[in-house]
Amino acid sequence: MGFFFTYPHCQVCDWREPEDLAALLDLELRENGESQHQLLKRVQDVAKYSVKTNHPRFFNQLFAGVDYHALAGRFLTEALNTSQYTYEVAPVFVLMEEEVLSKLRSLVGWTHGDGIFCPGGTVSNMYAMNLARFRAFPEVKVKGQWALPRLAVFASQEVCHYSVMKAAAFQGIGTENVFKVNVDDRGCMNPEDLCEKIELAKSQGAVPFFVHATSGTTVKGAFDPLESIADICERLGLWMHVDAAWGGSVLLSNEHRHLMKGVERADSVTWNPHKMMLTGLQCSAILLKDTTDLLKHCHCADATYLFQQDKFYDKSLDTGDKSIQCGRKVDCLKLWLMWKAVGSKGLEGRVDRAFAHVRYLVEEMKRREGFQLIWEVAPTIKERMMKQGTMMVGYQPHGGRVNFFRMIVISPQVSHEDMTFFLDEIERLGKDL
Amino acid sequence: MGFFFTYPHCQVCDWREPEDLAALLDLELRENGESQHQLLKRVQDVAKYSVKTNHPRFFNQLFAGVDYHALAGRFLTEALNTSQYTYEVAPVFVLMEEEVLSKLRSLVGWTHGDGIFCPGGTVSNMYAMNLARFRAFPEVKVKGQWALPRLAVFASQEVCHYSVMKAAAFQGIGTENVFKVNVDDRGCMNPEDLCEKIELAKSQGAVPFFVHATSGTTVKGAFDPLESIADICERLGLWMHVDAAWGGSVLLSNEHRHLMKGVERADSVTWNPHKMMLTGLQCSAILLKDTTDLLKHCHCADATYLFQQDKFYDKSLDTGDKSIQCGRKVDCLKLWLMWKAVGSKGLEGRVDRAFAHVRYLVEEMKRREGFQLIWEVAPTIKERMMKQGTMMVGYQPHGGRVNFFRMIVISPQVSHEDMTFFLDEIERLGKDL
Repeated sequence: MGFFFTYPHCQVCDWREPEDLAALLDLELRENGESQHQLLKRVQDVAKYSVKTNHPRFFNQLFAGVDYHALAGRFLTEALNTSQYTYEVAPVFVLMEEEVLSKLRSLVGWTHGDGIFCPGGTVSNMYAMNLARFRAFPEVKVKGQWALPRLAVFASQEVCHYSVMKAAAFQGIGTENVFKVNVDDRGCMNPEDLCEKIELAKSQGAVPFFVHATSGTTVKGAFDPLESIADICERLGLWMHVDAAWGGSVLLSNEHRHLMKGVERADSVTWNPHKMMLTGLQCSAILLKDTTDLLKHCHCADATYLFQQDKFYDKSLDTGDKSIQCGRKVDCLKLWLMWKAVGSKGLEGRVDRAFAHVRYLVEEMKRREGFQLIWEVAPTIKERMMKQGTMMVGYQPHGGRVNFFRMIVISPQVSHEDMTFFLDEIERLGKDL
Repeated sequence: MGFFFTYPHCQVCDWREPEDLAALLDLELRENGESQHQLLKRVQDVAKYSVKTNHPRFFNQLFAGVDYHALAGRFLTEALNTSQYTYEVAPVFVLMEEEVLSKLRSLVGWTHGDGIFCPGGTVSNMYAMNLARFRAFPEVKVKGQWALPRLAVFASQEVCHYSVMKAAAFQGIGTENVFKVNVDDRGCMNPEDLCEKIELAKSQGAVPFFVHATSGTTVKGAFDPLESIADICERLGLWMHVDAAWGGSVLLSNEHRHLMKGVERADSVTWNPHKMMLTGLQCSAILLKDTTDLLKHCHCADATYLFQQDKFYDKSLDTGDKSIQCGRKVDCLKLWLMWKAVGSKGLEGRVDRAFAHVRYLVEEMKRREGFQLIWEVAPTIKERMMKQGTMMVGYQPHGGRVNFFRMIVISPQVSHEDMTFFLDEIERLGKDL
């Protein structure tokens, strides 16, 4: 796997137009197999034309970089190829998942609770919404939503673009029943407007049941004010969910965990170690304060071929019925092994370093003229960047404003030099625009 | 990874009681990292105490065995660590996924269509149910299920234990709105009873919209009569889904594909190559006959930070908005590489061999006395089997009958000798009972 180690000679991407790439890869699946020599060439091509997301100058997504201990854990997970549903077939991973979840919960501030690893943050958020609905109206599982009043969900307008909407649509709640709460200049939810939107929903005959707060929004990285939101949820008996898929890792840092002050008052937290903690895709936990086995009651289907009641060991170890899936990939080993390797202190150092990079970048940008202007020509700069393959950064519009670049800095392989490179490169790519 | 190659000296499992295993593994996550030497020991322990699902005598689950080309694809997938949502960040895999899906669709009998890889068969089945609801009542996405009449789902009583029920609960439809259709002696859905259950649902004021047929039930391996079910669905305008998570691979075999005759008349098919095709967990496709972009219309949330409309390439290549997830693991490479390595003919041979093993096993069992009797003591035999680690086979009750062993035979590493071993070993483990 030499492509890991060829930086800085290696490009971030080797851009090809789709039709050219399809021809290069010869994707067609045929009647007969190929020689080992030919297969080796195919594996090399796949690597060559794939984006090097572990390259220090990949700033494009909320995942980036590589931790080699986590990668070893992922290889071992693949080699062992088991499903995370019974102690019988996954003895090590049933115990390990519980240990890892317990550690994440302790960072949230809970000594007890529940949880499970899910395929990605959106599914984790869906779990939270489904559990909240079930706690408020347990009859929904058997009778369906026709037995319930119209429900109302609340989330900040910053995050009402994706996972909350997907969850509301998929679970039959409907996107128009997600009420968009105003945010302040930094993109943080306005608790007063939350109260107003709750009243608005009630005045329309809907029943509020779920507040989706966010720690680390996708675009601005904003942290909603959890204490104020918790006050409101407690007063009104609403389920408080914190989507900390991106931001959760600040809980590892003594310096930055104040950003999530009040998180321990939530009912559920989504935390994706595959983002800032670099475990690799996918590793997303839904953490619960609940100690009444709500997760199992809500999702169980009692398949007799997996969860035999006459088993010769403690069947509470068969965690599969907590999941909406049947077969479930093992996602705990990569995180556990990395944690064993670098310790909580090592993880803390990474979070602190990422914040330091951002501070440096902001200072540097203030010193340079023209950056405000350059952002208006983002699509052209992006095209040049991809075709030259020197780095990758995402861009997007925001609110009424034009496109801007969204710079993600989490990889431990990133240096100040890479920050400077980013700024120089944006200037170079856009200098004639 | 020497534990792959130590068969037959290697046990299938090295059973430990949960508390003993927890102590052996020293799972606790601490402040400081550990030495490389210590970490190596941990990796070895994880492998030692995990179940060897690639062992030829692991007959316990619908996944088993290993294909080394697929495993190479899985390692490469982990190393490249990208998310399957845009051409920009996953150029190779966006094109490859479409090629693999197209190949699977062609085996179903479709020249056009749509599809996506999902985290497991239950989620694939959920997609089908959600798409069916959206096609019948597009307003559900925005308004939620309150705008809809009570809906009715139909599935055979053989499969009403798990994924259909989980889907109905999660999507707000409710488990009591899943009508259980009777089956014949072999476990196949009775089409006449399907008609009767549809009438029953209507008489209760529910609106039928979704028939969940199964090709390869989990317990009996039954194949529902798809032609007859298709006749009914066409006549009544119902969405016909075929859950072929387990059985789909018969489509690779000229000898056995008749079991799914009529599948091309379905609206959607779930097919898990991680089962009979041995790609490794997880690899589950939902395949669609639809050519109207239903998948995207049903699931899109138009996140501006991923799916910029002013991109410099064809944005129809950004498949992420077809998914209910945001980040999505790459599941196509392992299947593609294995297919390139052994060809369609090689895959066909594996399916045919699995069927031949089953025939041999049935014949052998008929020759041996006492097997009917032995099945009644399954839990005790299972306990002895696990503690000795010689093989792993699942057991369960079925209908009114007592526990029986469910033998899964798919690994290409399995020989007739292993079949004989299974029978001898059951006799040995149960001889005093």
